[in-house]
Amino acid sequence: MKKIIDGRDTTLGRAFDIFIQILIIFSIITFSIETLPDLKPHTREILHSIEVICVIIFTAEYLARIYIADKKLKFIFSFFGLIDFFAILPFYLTFGLDLRSLRIFRLLRLFRLLKLVRYNRAMQHFGRAMIVAKEQIILFMSITLILIYFAATGIYYFEHEAQPEKFASIFDSLWWSIVTLTTVGYGDVYPVTMGGRLFTFFILLIGLGIVAIPTGIISSSMTKVFNEKHQELKESGEYDELFEEEE
Amino acid sequence: MKKIIDGRDTTLGRAFDIFIQILIIFSIITFSIETLPDLKPHTREILHSIEVICVIIFTAEYLARIYIADKKLKFIFSFFGLIDFFAILPFYLTFGLDLRSLRIFRLLRLFRLLKLVRYNRAMQHFGRAMIVAKEQIILFMSITLILIYFAATGIYYFEHEAQPEKFASIFDSLWWSIVTLTTVGYGDVYPVTMGGRLFTFFILLIGLGIVAIPTGIISSSMTKVFNEKHQELKESGEYDELFEEEE
Amino acid sequence: MKKIIDGRDTTLGRAFDIFIQILIIFSIITFSIETLPDLKPHTREILHSIEVICVIIFTAEYLARIYIADKKLKFIFSFFGLIDFFAILPFYLTFGLDLRSLRIFRLLRLFRLLKLVRYNRAMQHFGRAMIVAKEQIILFMSITLILIYFAATGIYYFEHEAQPEKFASIFDSLWWSIVTLTTVGYGDVYPVTMGGRLFTFFILLIGLGIVAIPTGIISSSMTKVFNEKHQELKESGEYDELFEEEE
Amino acid sequence: MKKIIDGRDTTLGRAFDIFIQILIIFSIITFSIETLPDLKPHTREILHSIEVICVIIFTAEYLARIYIADKKLKFIFSFFGLIDFFAILPFYLTFGLDLRSLRIFRLLRLFRLLKLVRYNRAMQHFGRAMIVAKEQIILFMSITLILIYFAATGIYYFEHEAQPEKFASIFDSLWWSIVTLTTVGYGDVYPVTMGGRLFTFFILLIGLGIVAIPTGIISSSMTKVFNEKHQELKESGEYDELFEEEE
Repeated sequence: MKKIIDGRDTTLGRAFDIFIQILIIFSIITFSIETLPDLKPHTREILHSIEVICVIIFTAEYLARIYIADKKLKFIFSFFGLIDFFAILPFYLTFGLDLRSLRIFRLLRLFRLLKLVRYNRAMQHFGRAMIVAKEQIILFMSITLILIYFAATGIYYFEHEAQPEKFASIFDSLWWSIVTLTTVGYGDVYPVTMGGRLFTFFILLIGLGIVAIPTGIISSSMTKVFNEKHQELKESGEYDELFEEEE
Repeated sequence: MKKIIDGRDTTLGRAFDIFIQILIIFSIITFSIETLPDLKPHTREILHSIEVICVIIFTAEYLARIYIADKKLKFIFSFFGLIDFFAILPFYLTFGLDLRSLRIFRLLRLFRLLKLVRYNRAMQHFGRAMIVAKEQIILFMSITLILIYFAATGIYYFEHEAQPEKFASIFDSLWWSIVTLTTVGYGDVYPVTMGGRLFTFFILLIGLGIVAIPTGIISSSMTKVFNEKHQELKESGEYDELFEEEE
Repeated sequence: MKKIIDGRDTTLGRAFDIFIQILIIFSIITFSIETLPDLKPHTREILHSIEVICVIIFTAEYLARIYIADKKLKFIFSFFGLIDFFAILPFYLTFGLDLRSLRIFRLLRLFRLLKLVRYNRAMQHFGRAMIVAKEQIILFMSITLILIYFAATGIYYFEHEAQPEKFASIFDSLWWSIVTLTTVGYGDVYPVTMGGRLFTFFILLIGLGIVAIPTGIISSSMTKVFNEKHQELKESGEYDELFEEEE
Repeated sequence: MKKIIDGRDTTLGRAFDIFIQILIIFSIITFSIETLPDLKPHTREILHSIEVICVIIFTAEYLARIYIADKKLKFIFSFFGLIDFFAILPFYLTFGLDLRSLRIFRLLRLFRLLKLVRYNRAMQHFGRAMIVAKEQIILFMSITLILIYFAATGIYYFEHEAQPEKFASIFDSLWWSIVTLTTVGYGDVYPVTMGGRLFTFFILLIGLGIVAIPTGIISSSMTKVFNEKHQELKESGEYDELFEEEE
């Protein structure tokens, strides 16, 4: 049984992995459909039944993983153990009671998305990359935050009088800062005075280079970690096994 | 005849290549003009005549290519053989019948665009680059998709009550996710609550770095493949021939 | 006392640094809250009291730093000395008088943000990176400015007749140039004529590559300076001390 | 006299260069102010007088450059010779006649902007970089154009029925393609159907990587050319002379 659940060597083990992944995606789609407005009561019932079946299988999987673990407590408090637990918790908490309306409990169901991390190499790398570049990300994020705050204060003084509704306070201006410096530019708030536009210009010329730094660090850190792991796997031979169709 | 159609060595061979390329572009422009509203019946007739002439020439080219191929079946089922076939198919399917109104048949005419691949080195590299980086693109695309879904679920919980029309369900929120994380920012949907805006901020700070990865992989993979091919061509001397004006 | 204020070696020294940083952030938040509309007079009074306390502490810190400095005049006219001075100046200038309404004096309070530079390594690198890449930034900024002006003149001639309100003069068109070439695209001004749209297309294809250069220079210069400093600190052993938790 | 106009070695030569540059910028600002609506007749007269003075000096400069040139004809038909000629031509063509209203003649005045190239190293590098990367830029631009056309055709079929006004033909859809794939996203046209949105999503995921390639080529080619020239100048010692304040 351990081989089926934990390993990827046997055909059954792989089939089990794929089955769980399909179930996670299936359960996430169900979760999304539930948010559609104007659903018929009949559809709601079907969706609820699917939800119950998914949770039962996830519970069985969770208990099985505890059963096969050599150090049971260690697994329960491990990263993946906790994710498995929180993925089923909201269902049991709202069971019987009518707490389903509490939005926070429904949001907790998103933990199921994290169950996919176990099977996705890229997401594991993402976590590792964030740890490797932690120090740099914090340093450059802090400068990005200071820049965004500086831009917000500046635009507030230029635009507050011309547009008292849209630039009501520095907090409202912060929204403009974020949307502009990431170049999203929704168009809900934008400067209209000559001074505000000149200020926007200078902030953009300098600021785009600064906001690009954390983005670049995350990007390069992830591809570096990926390539290292890739190399290791290739050397150890494990890689060939996983990507037989590639060679 | 083989030399004219297949080779680029003779003056006639090059002339034939250029003639076919001009015809493809000409036929695409015709196709675009047909979509213009308020066309006079007379103009429509002219456009239809041009279309008929183009298809006749493309058919002749297709048959000639089969004729000169050493392994006829292999050519018919090759990448370029199939493109040549599908580029003329929609015309013959709708011939006589009044199926022209079927939009899908008109869309199939886009296969003619793919005929250009035969002559465009960059597009051939694009295909090759996508195959080389296939594994990485799939891995990082999957993390991008998970991030987009995560952003959509988050914004749904923050904005659904404030804007029930625009963030009607998670599927509507997905549109917001895509438009925001690619920094397109049309401005048709955007958060208005404090929570939604803070969430947007954090998603953008982390997310831009993640969405940039597949983009970067495609970019770097293409330039790498291009430079390698470039080098090969230069060494083999074939390059000098193609770009005589450069040296 | 010198050890407490200037050094980071003693526990008290570190505590003092953290205390000042918290106070700066606290004072900035207060400053932002003051801009909120519809504040109760009572809240205003509290905010003013906090402001007074912050300024008193900053003044004490400033005087203490002068006191411990070996060369007092050199400190007063140094970068950090001037920042410390201008961070408290606006308060004393408006003290007693009712100059608080003068917006420029309130904006001067932003100098407090610069006090954070003393404690933030990334921001120190930013300054250094700008000096290192100064020549390149000026050269490429000049080409960016010429491009933006060229785009503005072009769009003015294409769009002025169609949209005399939005493209009233070249100065109004400059705003469009900036917003478009940085890809922010608020959507307040955009071309509507065929010519203007074609022009936008060509400007974007060439221009995005040019506007990306100063951004890229700032980014790469900062990461280069950071890595060099990082290396130096690691070699000198100072680094271990600062980031003991890392090793 | 040759030393003053052509060289940068003497103090007078440098002063002359700076004087001409200031005059160019001054003349461009005048040109921009003329486009302002609601100018008083008096202001118009002043602007016209400035224009006349600028043109007289530029004419004198042009004639002097011909006079000092060893091979006069070669200078007249050189790049800078032609720019100098076209920078003054529009004035003389409209002199006496009332052709000033002809917009094309006013646009020709932009040639003065190109006179700045003589003094700006970055702009000279831009020209050189475009020539060096010419082949690559053409190849990847062609793939970008095909992608933009493909996106336009696709969105036309998805959105034409839902928004017959905005996606009236493939030509209108091309505008959407350009604005979306460069991530400008004005928000004047955007898909509203489920199919159109899904199509936008896939086009963005693949397309951003492709549109980024020409941008990247221009960027990297320019910085490469700049660094090479920089190195050469440094070695030849010419650099020290130009940037004495740096060393």
